[in-house]
Amino acid sequence: MADIFERLMKNYGPLGQHRERAHGYFAFPKLEGDISSRMKFRGKEVIVWSLNNYLGLANHPEIRKADADASAEFGLAYPMGARMMSGNSNHHEQLESELAEFVGKEDAALLNYGYQGMVSIIDVLCSRHDVIVYDAESHACIIDGLRLHPGHRYVFKHNDMEDFDKQMQRASALVQKQGTGGILVITEGVFGMAGDQGKLKEIVELKDKYEFRLLVDDAHGFGTLGETGAGAGEAQGIQDGIDLYFSTFAKSMASIGAFVAGDKAIIDYIRYNIRSQIFAKSLPMPIVIGNLKRLEMLRTMPELRQKLWENALKLQAGLKELGFDIGNTDTMVTPVYMKGGVEEATSMTMDLRENYSVFASVVVYPVIPKGHIIFRLIPTATHTDEDIQATLTAFAETKKKLDQGAYKSEAIPDMAEQR
Amino acid sequence: MADIFERLMKNYGPLGQHRERAHGYFAFPKLEGDISSRMKFRGKEVIVWSLNNYLGLANHPEIRKADADASAEFGLAYPMGARMMSGNSNHHEQLESELAEFVGKEDAALLNYGYQGMVSIIDVLCSRHDVIVYDAESHACIIDGLRLHPGHRYVFKHNDMEDFDKQMQRASALVQKQGTGGILVITEGVFGMAGDQGKLKEIVELKDKYEFRLLVDDAHGFGTLGETGAGAGEAQGIQDGIDLYFSTFAKSMASIGAFVAGDKAIIDYIRYNIRSQIFAKSLPMPIVIGNLKRLEMLRTMPELRQKLWENALKLQAGLKELGFDIGNTDTMVTPVYMKGGVEEATSMTMDLRENYSVFASVVVYPVIPKGHIIFRLIPTATHTDEDIQATLTAFAETKKKLDQGAYKSEAIPDMAEQR
Repeated sequence: MADIFERLMKNYGPLGQHRERAHGYFAFPKLEGDISSRMKFRGKEVIVWSLNNYLGLANHPEIRKADADASAEFGLAYPMGARMMSGNSNHHEQLESELAEFVGKEDAALLNYGYQGMVSIIDVLCSRHDVIVYDAESHACIIDGLRLHPGHRYVFKHNDMEDFDKQMQRASALVQKQGTGGILVITEGVFGMAGDQGKLKEIVELKDKYEFRLLVDDAHGFGTLGETGAGAGEAQGIQDGIDLYFSTFAKSMASIGAFVAGDKAIIDYIRYNIRSQIFAKSLPMPIVIGNLKRLEMLRTMPELRQKLWENALKLQAGLKELGFDIGNTDTMVTPVYMKGGVEEATSMTMDLRENYSVFASVVVYPVIPKGHIIFRLIPTATHTDEDIQATLTAFAETKKKLDQGAYKSEAIPDMAEQR
Repeated sequence: MADIFERLMKNYGPLGQHRERAHGYFAFPKLEGDISSRMKFRGKEVIVWSLNNYLGLANHPEIRKADADASAEFGLAYPMGARMMSGNSNHHEQLESELAEFVGKEDAALLNYGYQGMVSIIDVLCSRHDVIVYDAESHACIIDGLRLHPGHRYVFKHNDMEDFDKQMQRASALVQKQGTGGILVITEGVFGMAGDQGKLKEIVELKDKYEFRLLVDDAHGFGTLGETGAGAGEAQGIQDGIDLYFSTFAKSMASIGAFVAGDKAIIDYIRYNIRSQIFAKSLPMPIVIGNLKRLEMLRTMPELRQKLWENALKLQAGLKELGFDIGNTDTMVTPVYMKGGVEEATSMTMDLRENYSVFASVVVYPVIPKGHIIFRLIPTATHTDEDIQATLTAFAETKKKLDQGAYKSEAIPDMAEQR
């Protein structure tokens, strides 16, 4: 017999194990000041590449005014209770209908947070005879939804259509054998770490061959991809083939909450049965009104999306010219792949922050295999040419040091904040 | 092989099946105007008994000012990203430390929503050899957390200490036999439907007999129970025996978000490993600042809690005098138990709303057994004596009609909103 807490404290996990030296610097850092491409980190201005504020809406004067006005009018408490019990309003319904129209679906259901929304959508759709087929690099909220599924699930290798076909054969054979149950395919519009789009077009084309429903998490594609910004489905010309289109408001919308859109009949089913919404409070009114304003700007100001893409393409072209490996991204998400140990990655990140004023997130072992380093850069419409140039210079110079082994010998100081 | 959507549409569920006639009235009703004991429902003023605005903070002028000021200063987008990546701030940390101090624990971790917070706490604590022992009437967020647990779980009959002891024996025997794993006990401070407190004192006393950790969801007790408002653990004098104290901000705090408090070492473990927080956006700054203000008022204005209790006791005494069965509540939550069919409950609820201007939530079959009706009344500090008197009169008169069979013959009109 063991004490649960004692067992946990023996291993604080991949990130927690470094907390004594890293808290407040590598984990739980504070970016201060108005959200833009330049913010303060530990008192010094840095160029920020870590925020999914793709269109620059977070701090747009019209958004700031809408947020302030709605909070003054309604306060942050209203409405109280779950949507179904006492937390409904005309504004919640208006946002649902505008979102549905924007992504070309009949209806949409608001969700009070993206993570619990997705977990619960998977839960509400599937019973034990249904089979889920999903991409191996799906986001944590999808994985946790899958963990609630009592039936079978088959994972296909990331964006690998040959393996997808193989898993669909297995899934189809199983439901045939059972004589009951259906297939739900889950993938993403844009994979947030590597920046590659999900192969939605190829998957939708297979609807001729297999019978399934398709749920797409387009957190990063919503507002950034497609002619009107309606996302990866629009960009790939197959929006109608997506049965349930999901996005959070936490990226291009610079807010919280999420939505799922599809045919009215299935959205109604979800609305009346989704546990994370029936048993949790409605999204506060100022957040809803703020999102109505964000959606309006996202729809009517294509120049924001153009600027995002200009910046993304400049950054990516610059990195490629300098010989950096940015992998298979075909979106604005810009990973930079390097080789090196955890200590080297740590020293390089500190050098970037302290001496080049470049704030970027870094991913190392054990999140990815040993010896690999990924910096993930998120360009936005608020970045300037100067930001991009300074960052390219910083990466060129620090990469040179990395390759020369300069970071190997550096002792890493204790960067933790006093707590 | 079946289509998932088609199968779902054959049965819209216990609440969804009535949506054609009930949408906007019994489900997804809109309560409009400032949050108080009197609001507008479909254009008419009603006395509201459905909102967990226990202390009346939702619409307190100081709260409204704090919410408005914080939204004007920061906007609703800030900070962006998960706490761990880029969404941390001094205010988030300050709220954590003030919450911890208030509930008498070393440390606290903010959670961006109560539902996903609780689901993920259970997930982060327990591995497959651990055993969970939990109360049968636990809230949906606890149940869904349990569903993620790969190990054994034993349920004890609601607040039944004999059965608790039996389940603890089974759990202890299992971990003894395994030679590894620990026991987590989960219950609530206040059960939100029936209003009875969890038997925390009795459970904590059994720590002499069994080795376990205790996680308490005190959503309804926080701010309402105990000498200082620190909740059910304080009220029962065993706050120190609670290893992890959890509450949402959606009830007495009239906000969104939640927290979990305990020893610093375990909170740090949770902070660095809890999936719903690592993979979802941080709580917006105005919500955090609004909660700091709410906590300050909750701590420094005991008169709000006194007023809540005065109202609760008046309402409950009045109902008992009239011969109503309010069950075992020992908190402000006030259920009213009656006998009758679904149609009678429907007609009575409509009569209360339309002819007595009393808005109360009602629970019927299939949520509870056939033939039973529960009205659940939530008194708050904002209710007046007039509200209480009018409601007692309304219940007395409609109950008489119910007993006389007057609601049996009534045809129930279609109350759905145009959609």
